[in-house]
Amino acid sequence: MPHGIFISLDGVDGAGKSTQCRLLADWLRGNGRSVVTCHDPGGTDLGQELRNLLLHYQGKMSLTTEALLFMASRAQLVADVIRPALAAGSVVLCDRFLLANVVYQGHAGGLEPNDLWTVGRFCTGGLEPDLTFVLDLPLEVSFARRKDGGDRLESRGLDYFVKVRAGFLSEAQRRPDRIRIVDATAPANDVLDILKNDIAPWLH
Amino acid sequence: MPHGIFISLDGVDGAGKSTQCRLLADWLRGNGRSVVTCHDPGGTDLGQELRNLLLHYQGKMSLTTEALLFMASRAQLVADVIRPALAAGSVVLCDRFLLANVVYQGHAGGLEPNDLWTVGRFCTGGLEPDLTFVLDLPLEVSFARRKDGGDRLESRGLDYFVKVRAGFLSEAQRRPDRIRIVDATAPANDVLDILKNDIAPWLH
Repeated sequence: MPHGIFISLDGVDGAGKSTQCRLLADWLRGNGRSVVTCHDPGGTDLGQELRNLLLHYQGKMSLTTEALLFMASRAQLVADVIRPALAAGSVVLCDRFLLANVVYQGHAGGLEPNDLWTVGRFCTGGLEPDLTFVLDLPLEVSFARRKDGGDRLESRGLDYFVKVRAGFLSEAQRRPDRIRIVDATAPANDVLDILKNDIAPWLH
Repeated sequence: MPHGIFISLDGVDGAGKSTQCRLLADWLRGNGRSVVTCHDPGGTDLGQELRNLLLHYQGKMSLTTEALLFMASRAQLVADVIRPALAAGSVVLCDRFLLANVVYQGHAGGLEPNDLWTVGRFCTGGLEPDLTFVLDLPLEVSFARRKDGGDRLESRGLDYFVKVRAGFLSEAQRRPDRIRIVDATAPANDVLDILKNDIAPWLH
């Protein structure tokens, strides 16, 4: 049985995470691999309830509470979906993971990034992606690609997203073995070729 | 303005936490103090939604997820209720707090108690009760005092509650300056006298 591989895709909105997840899944299945795709937050019944709170709750929610709700959803996703899939030898493709909290609530929101890594280790039981691709876009391209309105998190201001992008770049510099920045202004198939190239060594 | 005092009450179900909260609030108000009472989880709009999930959710919920949902509810309670009340000089009486996670999901559930203290510090921003009273009962008394049925957490087996009680006793030994074990088999007014006696030095 092949060993499981855990890959997450992250980055600013509009960078093409879901497109690349789909294209990668097709390619991996074409190579005979079993693939499980998921998104974080969400991916379980309870996680979907928490995702709805995170994206649409209208009342007061502190940044710490927000981070902990992401963590709660992720803990269930790891237990019910990701660990079983990896144990069965599948490739797991996850749309966002812990890094997103480190960047959005940490670097951009003002919580201590190391605290989010620490709480994240509790949440995941120490499981981390083998590879994380951060699809990077200049902010003006990200904003132009967004759908109208946006959810609770997308509605934060430009300053916030400047810090989000810088946070992703900073974390990638700290973990170059695990986190790759990919220029997402290129056509989708060119982006896909970069991801394939990085994933290929893990397949054998 | 008097300084705020943060007091939590904890212990097994049926030990009289809510009765003692009420009696203490009456006594403190009779002494001219402003009192804010709350319960954890809950105490905010979002916290109440999370409390409902914690007590009544029927689907799968891992112990780690459960702990993180308690933490999320508590983070909002600290931000919206407890910190403002303490800043205004009130006495805060909270029915359960972080210690309950350390004991129920940690000592009894099998998660590492120190991890729960660590995640708890993130959740509370380091705020901890000045005094915690653990109302202690032999398990047969606790079970006999329970209402029929019980919620999602109360439905766990006897072994679990043996560990809960031992967990409270163990944590009280580690933090004798902050955590007091009180024999809750005594009549309510006798229990109250013990609590008053411990709180009195904090009032001046």
